[in-house]
Amino acid sequence: MTYCVALRVEAGLVMLSDTRTNAGLDNIGMFRKTFTYEKPDERAIALLCSGNLSITQEVKAKISRALKDSVENPEIETILNCASLHRAAHLVGEAMKTVRQEMRAGMAAGDVSLFANILVAGQRKGGKLRLYLVYSEGNFIEATADTPFFQIGEHKYGKPILDRMIKPTTSLSDAAKAVCVSMDSTLRSNLTVGMPLDLSIIPRDEYKFSLRRRIEAHDPEFSKISQAWGAALSHGFESLPSMID
Amino acid sequence: MTYCVALRVEAGLVMLSDTRTNAGLDNIGMFRKTFTYEKPDERAIALLCSGNLSITQEVKAKISRALKDSVENPEIETILNCASLHRAAHLVGEAMKTVRQEMRAGMAAGDVSLFANILVAGQRKGGKLRLYLVYSEGNFIEATADTPFFQIGEHKYGKPILDRMIKPTTSLSDAAKAVCVSMDSTLRSNLTVGMPLDLSIIPRDEYKFSLRRRIEAHDPEFSKISQAWGAALSHGFESLPSMID
Repeated sequence: MTYCVALRVEAGLVMLSDTRTNAGLDNIGMFRKTFTYEKPDERAIALLCSGNLSITQEVKAKISRALKDSVENPEIETILNCASLHRAAHLVGEAMKTVRQEMRAGMAAGDVSLFANILVAGQRKGGKLRLYLVYSEGNFIEATADTPFFQIGEHKYGKPILDRMIKPTTSLSDAAKAVCVSMDSTLRSNLTVGMPLDLSIIPRDEYKFSLRRRIEAHDPEFSKISQAWGAALSHGFESLPSMID
Repeated sequence: MTYCVALRVEAGLVMLSDTRTNAGLDNIGMFRKTFTYEKPDERAIALLCSGNLSITQEVKAKISRALKDSVENPEIETILNCASLHRAAHLVGEAMKTVRQEMRAGMAAGDVSLFANILVAGQRKGGKLRLYLVYSEGNFIEATADTPFFQIGEHKYGKPILDRMIKPTTSLSDAAKAVCVSMDSTLRSNLTVGMPLDLSIIPRDEYKFSLRRRIEAHDPEFSKISQAWGAALSHGFESLPSMID
């Protein structure tokens, strides 16, 4: 399983992913699921991946190959030179569709899920902050002010806190806290979501990552948030009115 | 969908269920999912049902028929005269198995899920507080001090708060708050779980329900808990340390 979450608030984009992959509960691995791309002062893009790992790795390989090839041949379209973030989401969707078509015949033999989702978050100079959710079939949707975040993978445990806390006006600092709290709830409830985590932030109109941070299992700041949140919940819980007296 | 939760703490049993059923998102109904049985001063039992409604209604009908028939013929075994709560869970499981067998052939024609779960919570004089989760196949498990609650139906949104708050020593008042908060998170995130709710409580060694309460959509006390919890979360959230400064 996986849990990836990306928020699009007015102040910027905040992304968090875990690193656990599993093929059954007895076969657990660690793979980075957030990939960052930057053309300094022009655009910054993060991809967050969930689902069939062989599909998302192949999609990422196609994107990377295009970026490499474009160094010698600038006419090759890539997520870093294409006209817009919308077009970048299209390129990711096209790669997804191609990879699934390539894999479908071979994988039909086994009972293997071809499900995969990729979040595309970023901004280019002259454009707005954008957040897209690309589906297995290559189509995608965009986050709006009404729905300022997307989650992929194991999204349920960590959703209530985002529903309550995230508004378009939420600060980047609060957005970073919120994704950590959301992840913390998920880590506690689902063993197939696991540390370390990858936290990244793209502030509005800076066209670069202000933060790309690996949060290890005993990270003191993450632990502090986790403990402080537990204490705040207990404290808040004590102050609730009774239902039965 | 459905959300039912039952807690077994040292002070007693606390149960809460919603009432929404749906066959697709455009076909929504309201059905009670908590059923209470009492033999005053000897035993009290609650059943909470999720899954295929035609199955759980039929299971309930079998249990009710036995209770009715046992008035004239006390040799008929029922959940109110059987030797133990463990045996009562068996009777529910047997009814589940029988109903599924009766229905399987007819329902195989359509692509219909035969999935159903029933929580059995109660205590008889001379016995302990018991909480069982009966599976579709009729087998069941019992809650222990390590896992003092069971959830059936849409369990994920409301689980983190229970994981953090419920201990064997939790009071009945706090347990009632906890199930309300857990339900509140679920109601916000899943449209197929809906008001009104049914809250019931069996205090330890009283062999009766101290509370059987229908909570309607604008219940002032439930609304107060919901609002107070929202405020407590916001307040707690503000007090968290920052991840990025």
